[in-house]
Amino acid sequence: MVILEHMKETDHESLTRLVAEGAGEYLRHLSVDSVIFSFHEGKLKVLLLRMKDLPQYALPGGYVRNDEGVDEAAHRILAERTGLGEVFLEQCGTFGDRDRTGEDRGEGLFRSLGADLPPGNWLRERFVSVSYYALVNHDLAHPQPGFFATECSWHSVTHLPDMIFDHARIIRKAQETLKQHLDYKLLGSNLLPETFTMNELQRLYEAVLGRTLLRANFQRKMLGLGILERLDKKFGGGAHKAPYLYRFKLLEH
Amino acid sequence: MVILEHMKETDHESLTRLVAEGAGEYLRHLSVDSVIFSFHEGKLKVLLLRMKDLPQYALPGGYVRNDEGVDEAAHRILAERTGLGEVFLEQCGTFGDRDRTGEDRGEGLFRSLGADLPPGNWLRERFVSVSYYALVNHDLAHPQPGFFATECSWHSVTHLPDMIFDHARIIRKAQETLKQHLDYKLLGSNLLPETFTMNELQRLYEAVLGRTLLRANFQRKMLGLGILERLDKKFGGGAHKAPYLYRFKLLEH
Repeated sequence: MVILEHMKETDHESLTRLVAEGAGEYLRHLSVDSVIFSFHEGKLKVLLLRMKDLPQYALPGGYVRNDEGVDEAAHRILAERTGLGEVFLEQCGTFGDRDRTGEDRGEGLFRSLGADLPPGNWLRERFVSVSYYALVNHDLAHPQPGFFATECSWHSVTHLPDMIFDHARIIRKAQETLKQHLDYKLLGSNLLPETFTMNELQRLYEAVLGRTLLRANFQRKMLGLGILERLDKKFGGGAHKAPYLYRFKLLEH
Repeated sequence: MVILEHMKETDHESLTRLVAEGAGEYLRHLSVDSVIFSFHEGKLKVLLLRMKDLPQYALPGGYVRNDEGVDEAAHRILAERTGLGEVFLEQCGTFGDRDRTGEDRGEGLFRSLGADLPPGNWLRERFVSVSYYALVNHDLAHPQPGFFATECSWHSVTHLPDMIFDHARIIRKAQETLKQHLDYKLLGSNLLPETFTMNELQRLYEAVLGRTLLRANFQRKMLGLGILERLDKKFGGGAHKAPYLYRFKLLEH
């Protein structure tokens, strides 16, 4: 799903205010970026923003309010971009290399949005990004570009476009973290519909791990974890041939 | 090993300069804290600073220079506190809760060091801590308190003293991260001497995991990983009764 939104007057006002007054409203030097994953049509996807008049894409992100926790800021920004409230969101690393945004330090980005940053403006300073990864249900998310971008859309992690700053590196780190977490957290719950077949679950694992798994081994391992509940088949035409449906048991969170 | 160091004139000068000029030298709002683990006498230990005239202990930490990467800052601070260069150091989370340092926001800490922070001083602002955990060889580390503390010493993770700010929470997060990493990283290399017995290795794992392991299972699992090299026993008195010594094979890092 792609939503195109042209800049409205209110967007330009928001931008002007961010440049002029943001230093008093937000923590300086600090931004939050989120790698928002979903699972759709058998593929692991990530939500990216297309920046106005720039060739690169960017992760959904934002700044931390003076009176707001860093994790809170990440939840707020995720809700603004997807319309989703309670979702799995966890840190995957803080990116603070000296030159991570290049010599330009984001000036080009703001120029492309119609804002020239005055010398000494807080947005020209160096930024450190606290990065998160989120798992959302593809069908429930409603991507919103916000005033920084013209487009907010899903991209397959295996075919990423050119990314701004160190955002490609952040996505790789989020993928690694997701792989590691698969083994001990029940991450499927947000990425799959409420009920699913064993085959759908296997395809999710394969998409995350980036390799194929043996069907019999996978089923044995998953059932052995004791986290799945098998539903009774409905009576009716052909139900005896349909695959079993499963759902996750009540999760500890 | 406990090193006591009374404040010298040069320390007070450093402190005065940090308060007055630090805002131009360091990234504001951002600090780095490290949970430095070692393994000694069968116990997992952590390096803590005793702050002057304060009842609480603190993690070794510091600020990020304007021209320095965040990870670089963590390595520099670790070297300053332990005298060690190349050690395993990895992020374990960024702590940015709004009230994480309490209402006091570190003012009491600086007052106890002899520095009153003027209104509006950068050190009275809110700080977000990028936290790391490190694994060091107990025998090679030389704890140095630096000018913020009067004492720098090892404490068993099972008997921690009262900690300042949210530092107890950071230590718990570092322990969790260490447990998770044991399964897929070869973390023993920095925590053990170059050669060790299977029994010593098992005690390290038990200290990290906080539970006892079955000896036969542990040995089978470790040897099965293919990461250990068994050394030939030396000839001489009683060597035939001594346990085998092992060392880690060349590590990917």
